[in-house]
Amino acid sequence: MARWQPGTRERLQTTALQLFASQGYDQTTVAEIAAAAEVTERTFFRHFADKREVLFAGQADFLGMFTGPIEALPDDTPPFVAIRNALVSAGAFFDDEKRPFSRARQSVVDQNPALRERELGKLATLKVRLGELLRSRGVPEPAATIAAETGVTVFHLSFQQWIAEGEQRSFEDIAAERLDALTAIVHPGR
Amino acid sequence: MARWQPGTRERLQTTALQLFASQGYDQTTVAEIAAAAEVTERTFFRHFADKREVLFAGQADFLGMFTGPIEALPDDTPPFVAIRNALVSAGAFFDDEKRPFSRARQSVVDQNPALRERELGKLATLKVRLGELLRSRGVPEPAATIAAETGVTVFHLSFQQWIAEGEQRSFEDIAAERLDALTAIVHPGR
Repeated sequence: MARWQPGTRERLQTTALQLFASQGYDQTTVAEIAAAAEVTERTFFRHFADKREVLFAGQADFLGMFTGPIEALPDDTPPFVAIRNALVSAGAFFDDEKRPFSRARQSVVDQNPALRERELGKLATLKVRLGELLRSRGVPEPAATIAAETGVTVFHLSFQQWIAEGEQRSFEDIAAERLDALTAIVHPGR
Repeated sequence: MARWQPGTRERLQTTALQLFASQGYDQTTVAEIAAAAEVTERTFFRHFADKREVLFAGQADFLGMFTGPIEALPDDTPPFVAIRNALVSAGAFFDDEKRPFSRARQSVVDQNPALRERELGKLATLKVRLGELLRSRGVPEPAATIAAETGVTVFHLSFQQWIAEGEQRSFEDIAAERLDALTAIVHPGR
């Protein structure tokens, strides 16, 4: 079979997720994933460092999805507007086609303490990066950290709702509802 | 020695923390803590289920510190006002006298992955409880969850600053600064 067959990476991800879901993450070996995806283990390791990375690949893309759109804004953009832009950009990534995969992935992650910790680490890294980015754009403390932490909280809550059973609204609509709720809660002058 | 000597619990906590800090959490046994505090192991176990609980005792008190003041407010109190009240109440608990202990405790927790996870679990439980409490008081979703998550985020960031090296301001002042920063971010130009 071709060494760089198009779609191999995606097939490995889908196959791995099916095995994790059906027989458990800990019980699944790289050899089984490779066999089920009809590639060699060597090919698996060309795409992923280990089986955990099948679920956490693309960390740089994940961070860039939020930081990219903020970097494209004028420096004097208010931080909450910057966060809203980042969430809209995330909405373009988390489209309807990705929802079944995201649901299945989350179910695997939720069942495994080490994967849950890795997932929390991913969100913690995002908070740090967003805080650094806002500070580098002139947002003072504590506003930069508060904006970054609040933005990631809204992202996380929106994502959880987006993958909830029966949810059909777009990620962008769900995130907008949460940003609006935050705006309504936080009363100026009280 | 007296079986219920006053101050035994506090002495066990202080002694344990000193040992954790000087020789490492994993390297410290209950026997050593008891010996250093001049009590029997049996006495230690009357106060704490295990050595980890020396650092995490009083979870119910911790949760009640936030929920108690909210429960005392009229039902129609806006959620952000309720959160502010909870943070002011936390400020009364985290007074200057507790700061050295909190600093030393955090340093031990930060160095141990299992303790860090337990600490995150404590904050996650607080988020769930606050969300439930606000919903039970008639705050709709997603406002209740957003208010709870944001409140715990502000608490956590304020606490980190309160124990930062050289910080001398009160917890209440630090939390107020962060709540005001959040208000300014969400409602710029007001």
